[in-house]
Amino acid sequence: MNIIIDAMGGDNAPAATLLGAAAAVKNLGICITAVGNSAVMQAAVKQHNIDMQNISIHHAPETMEMDEDATNVRKRPNTSLAVALRLLAEDKGDALVSAGSTGAVLVGATLVVKRIKGVSRAALGAVMPSAKNPWILIDCGANTECRPEQLLQFAAMGSAYMQKVMGIKSPIVALANNGAEENKGGPLQQAAFALLKQSGLNFAGNIEGRAIPMGQADVIVCDGFTGNIILKTVEGMAKMMSGKIKEMFYASGKTKIAGLMMKKSLAEFKKGFDYKEFGGAPLLGIKKPVIKAHGSSDAKAFMNAIRQAKDCAAQDVCGTIEAFISAQKSEETPDE
Amino acid sequence: MNIIIDAMGGDNAPAATLLGAAAAVKNLGICITAVGNSAVMQAAVKQHNIDMQNISIHHAPETMEMDEDATNVRKRPNTSLAVALRLLAEDKGDALVSAGSTGAVLVGATLVVKRIKGVSRAALGAVMPSAKNPWILIDCGANTECRPEQLLQFAAMGSAYMQKVMGIKSPIVALANNGAEENKGGPLQQAAFALLKQSGLNFAGNIEGRAIPMGQADVIVCDGFTGNIILKTVEGMAKMMSGKIKEMFYASGKTKIAGLMMKKSLAEFKKGFDYKEFGGAPLLGIKKPVIKAHGSSDAKAFMNAIRQAKDCAAQDVCGTIEAFISAQKSEETPDE
Repeated sequence: MNIIIDAMGGDNAPAATLLGAAAAVKNLGICITAVGNSAVMQAAVKQHNIDMQNISIHHAPETMEMDEDATNVRKRPNTSLAVALRLLAEDKGDALVSAGSTGAVLVGATLVVKRIKGVSRAALGAVMPSAKNPWILIDCGANTECRPEQLLQFAAMGSAYMQKVMGIKSPIVALANNGAEENKGGPLQQAAFALLKQSGLNFAGNIEGRAIPMGQADVIVCDGFTGNIILKTVEGMAKMMSGKIKEMFYASGKTKIAGLMMKKSLAEFKKGFDYKEFGGAPLLGIKKPVIKAHGSSDAKAFMNAIRQAKDCAAQDVCGTIEAFISAQKSEETPDE
Repeated sequence: MNIIIDAMGGDNAPAATLLGAAAAVKNLGICITAVGNSAVMQAAVKQHNIDMQNISIHHAPETMEMDEDATNVRKRPNTSLAVALRLLAEDKGDALVSAGSTGAVLVGATLVVKRIKGVSRAALGAVMPSAKNPWILIDCGANTECRPEQLLQFAAMGSAYMQKVMGIKSPIVALANNGAEENKGGPLQQAAFALLKQSGLNFAGNIEGRAIPMGQADVIVCDGFTGNIILKTVEGMAKMMSGKIKEMFYASGKTKIAGLMMKKSLAEFKKGFDYKEFGGAPLLGIKKPVIKAHGSSDAKAFMNAIRQAKDCAAQDVCGTIEAFISAQKSEETPDE
């Protein structure tokens, strides 16, 4: 198993990406191809004394900036991201991880690695915390506007991920909506509901925002605008409430002592909402696994993203998606 | 000042509504007209020994069910909600509070009390907790699909509420969007951004979900679908995280002791996210103040909703909205 990484993408690259890669080699027994500016990477290796066993460096002279126009991934073929994507397209690795800009990873993967046959749009899934088990939110921001058929495909893609990578036999799929009843939402949600109902997926109907963090569904499907709002509101609330809890423990001498007594539990509580534990966001619908790691990934978060990439490749998530899409297509056009 | 209440609306009516009314009379120095089935109300008064000073009962024989079709408010003119709305339209009171179904309150207020001249759609505002001060989310669910001009009006209405009722001199307005940059979102958000920019409101640009709970804006504007998702995701996260905190304190003998030491702080923490403290949701754009109290309101929540109704009336929120809308209209059509 060889995972290609965009070693220069992200706020803490290349130190965090290479340290994450070294940890992944050690923990997951894989090989890594680290794509990026060779001199810059060598300097980081030296500075942080990184063990480069089973990590091969592939030189790419340029680097995409985080705020650069996403379409530049096409205009600048010598950036670490563009080179990494080409290596993946040419089967020089089994999956790719980048902490670079979401837009560039999305555009680049679609243009260079290309979509699975029949997939209308690639979608970004976010693995999210809940009161119970983690669940996937798809699309969490790649496609601002969507058609109902695309929401159906997103559901199938999220379902394949939860089944293959998270080991859930028959993932429960729900449609994010402004009410539980079948006729809720706008034309998009109403049409998507009808498609999901007859999809063969384990569709449980609409889910309201209030139930989203409760872990009642394994896959929550929506357009990318709604998904972005959900993802970031969840993150914002987790951050805001964690801050309030911290304030509460720092209020007085007595509460500080209580805080010390709770130290272990508080650390676990914090861990439960820590994006670093959840790894990256799988970009689903692309021919080969692509994981978008958080832009501010540290070594641990990047290693977890590499683990996801490995699991996607090992469990053939892309093949599962392809099979679902082609079965749907043949149902739709039985005479072809 | 006389506030009309739909005494039969809500899960705990009429006990909670009448107890809330009695508390409001005592604390706010107002009169109340309680509309509903007289016999049922008298029984509740007797059972709970409610002080009915300055509360006059107005008989309405029927009651809308919580899950009844909203348009029935028109077909059933003898329900407590329909009668209460007519009393408000006939200037028999200064404002109205109902804990009945949101749809029925919205439809009824629009049909019976009617919209302010020039207002395209009434919108529901939700007063929400944040890391700093409360803020208003508008529309939080009344209008699933919206036009850009409607979002501008929602912003003006929310701004009037925060200025007049919450005492914020120049409320900061932000547009809920999937990114901070001006070109973010779909056609609705892009067009609304342009209108808000030149509206004369204190418009601070787009706001992402992550920043929403931080209290960076006083008014967050969006279509009702997005607003419903934000409102309920915030509620769901608050509930989920509060549950996790409770679990944490119940984990062992040691954590239970820490919990006792934190008792006061925990109660305050809980209070900060308690809808009962925030009262109801103002329905803005209607000719007179209408407050939709939470369906599960207890007496305290209902009293706080009455307080909001009183403040809206005393501060002439409706007049402020009317002035903004008519100024906008005359700008748009200078030749008329």
